[in-house]
Amino acid sequence: MKLIVDLKDRQYPIWIERKALYHIDEIINTHRKIAIIHDDAIPSKWIEIVKEQCENCVIFSFPEGENSKCFEQYQYLLQQCIDHHLSRKDAIVAIGGGVTGDLAGFVASTYMRGIDFYNIPTTILSQVDSSVGGKVAIDMGSYKNIVGSFYQPKGVLIDPDVLSTLSIRQQHNGLVEALKMGLILDENLVCEFEKEQLDIEAIITRSIDLKRQVVQEDEKENSLRKILNFGHTIGHAIEGAYGLDTYYHGECVAMGMLFFIEDKELKNRVLKIYDKLSLPAVPDYDVDTLMEFISHDKKGTQNVISVISVAKAGSYSIEEMNYEQIRLKLLRGAYEESNRK
Amino acid sequence: MKLIVDLKDRQYPIWIERKALYHIDEIINTHRKIAIIHDDAIPSKWIEIVKEQCENCVIFSFPEGENSKCFEQYQYLLQQCIDHHLSRKDAIVAIGGGVTGDLAGFVASTYMRGIDFYNIPTTILSQVDSSVGGKVAIDMGSYKNIVGSFYQPKGVLIDPDVLSTLSIRQQHNGLVEALKMGLILDENLVCEFEKEQLDIEAIITRSIDLKRQVVQEDEKENSLRKILNFGHTIGHAIEGAYGLDTYYHGECVAMGMLFFIEDKELKNRVLKIYDKLSLPAVPDYDVDTLMEFISHDKKGTQNVISVISVAKAGSYSIEEMNYEQIRLKLLRGAYEESNRK
Repeated sequence: MKLIVDLKDRQYPIWIERKALYHIDEIINTHRKIAIIHDDAIPSKWIEIVKEQCENCVIFSFPEGENSKCFEQYQYLLQQCIDHHLSRKDAIVAIGGGVTGDLAGFVASTYMRGIDFYNIPTTILSQVDSSVGGKVAIDMGSYKNIVGSFYQPKGVLIDPDVLSTLSIRQQHNGLVEALKMGLILDENLVCEFEKEQLDIEAIITRSIDLKRQVVQEDEKENSLRKILNFGHTIGHAIEGAYGLDTYYHGECVAMGMLFFIEDKELKNRVLKIYDKLSLPAVPDYDVDTLMEFISHDKKGTQNVISVISVAKAGSYSIEEMNYEQIRLKLLRGAYEESNRK
Repeated sequence: MKLIVDLKDRQYPIWIERKALYHIDEIINTHRKIAIIHDDAIPSKWIEIVKEQCENCVIFSFPEGENSKCFEQYQYLLQQCIDHHLSRKDAIVAIGGGVTGDLAGFVASTYMRGIDFYNIPTTILSQVDSSVGGKVAIDMGSYKNIVGSFYQPKGVLIDPDVLSTLSIRQQHNGLVEALKMGLILDENLVCEFEKEQLDIEAIITRSIDLKRQVVQEDEKENSLRKILNFGHTIGHAIEGAYGLDTYYHGECVAMGMLFFIEDKELKNRVLKIYDKLSLPAVPDYDVDTLMEFISHDKKGTQNVISVISVAKAGSYSIEEMNYEQIRLKLLRGAYEESNRK
């Protein structure tokens, strides 16, 4: 299936298909130099399959992990592009998860003031979330995504078969962002999670389709796109306080969403889905610690935060909250009014 | 006078007016945090005048010179933006020449994925050339402008009065790019240079207007915008071989244009203008050295170079030349068929 992200002169296809990885020329012009960028933890077979389809291919690798979204790796990859004589007409292809797409995308957006960029996300998280929408960036110190661009790819290729090498925990971690899309925009997608057998391909496709529509409405996150931050305010704080070694990003978002589900029945439905996905319980956090991360995350520029709440599956509300109101939420806890506590 | 660069959703005004520097709120919303970026050689009075008009102003300075278009200064300025809590709604204002606009513009284009950028060029060169068109970049090693963005400013403010602090040589250096615009696009502009008394304001305004039209046609330099490279192929090589301490950028472009003026009478007219501007004569270059710089400039990605030639003032032709043909031009010399040699 091909979905078109319609951003006028920056329009591009998202191709979702089993075995798509074997047919990259369906969306990528391979008759030029292709620089594949990947981390050192990705199964080498995915790289090989893509490489074999390119006439003239160079491969740049970087160490796995969020720490690679840094100036050092950014400069290293730019230098590789220079050393391998990439021209303005050549292309960069990212193969991997969110970190790879963010880093390689930022390189592509700035090398020679921007060359063609393609993304082949290989985790559920990056397939349903970061690969669509053109947000690329690196971190600086403890500030995440503080340096980057809005730079739309020329195409995104999603092959659900590549997910086979992910652990169950990684898969469920990624599905949280899809559940988030359902909670704010589409109850049917929430219902998909309540089926006996999860249809992962259907969930991915529906979730991408929703994200595509949001991005089309608000490419540069001036308004509507902010709803995608549902669960992220407290989620990011938990991520910061406990580290990504303890909880994965999606697991933190799952915890973060609970604080802003404003309906008891819906919260219980969601908790059942969390159980099904074996998501970890919210730990006994320290309120002050999380509050510090929240104000740091906002870079000290605002006194109020736009917070997304959901009272009915498939719809959201936006509210400006000050830090005291957020603190109150944390004091009350994630499970307030649910069957859990 | 206000000229509008019409790039649809990225439209912006260029305001050309004596004393405009005292009325920046004509184009800049000053009711927010403004980060002024400048080099340490600019007369401090220009900075003070702008600062006094801002409610909430922070000032970041960097060492003068092309060498500051580097990762170190780029990172330093980004860190300053973080440390001073610049938000997505704040703005960066560059005050200075081409280096300042390129560096500050690249910071603005990537900090938080892009914040508002305003340019106040204070040299003729940057007023007529680099401030219009949205090309921002830094260098890497010996590769110029290899990392950057196409990022349109929100407004450009040109106050011809600030040119008073420039040396005559700097002024004439800048006028070369205006003469270039005339040679390729508008004979009347060439005639302006032949008047007894130069009307610098008229020259600047006409030149900017021409550049504006080219940028509107081809924002991302896919085709038409390449004509602005007239004189730059050999000009850049002379710049590389002799260094900017010996010849200024415009002086090198002036030399570079001579090789591609294909009409004897026109060449003699142009040489008379060069005399009037006291531009230096073309030195006794070494052909091999210049050829090395030319192939390096093209980053080794092409065997042919698009070269712009002018046979009649106000019109150009584009020709693909291989390295042998360029070498032949260099062997024949800049003054071939002119009265000069």
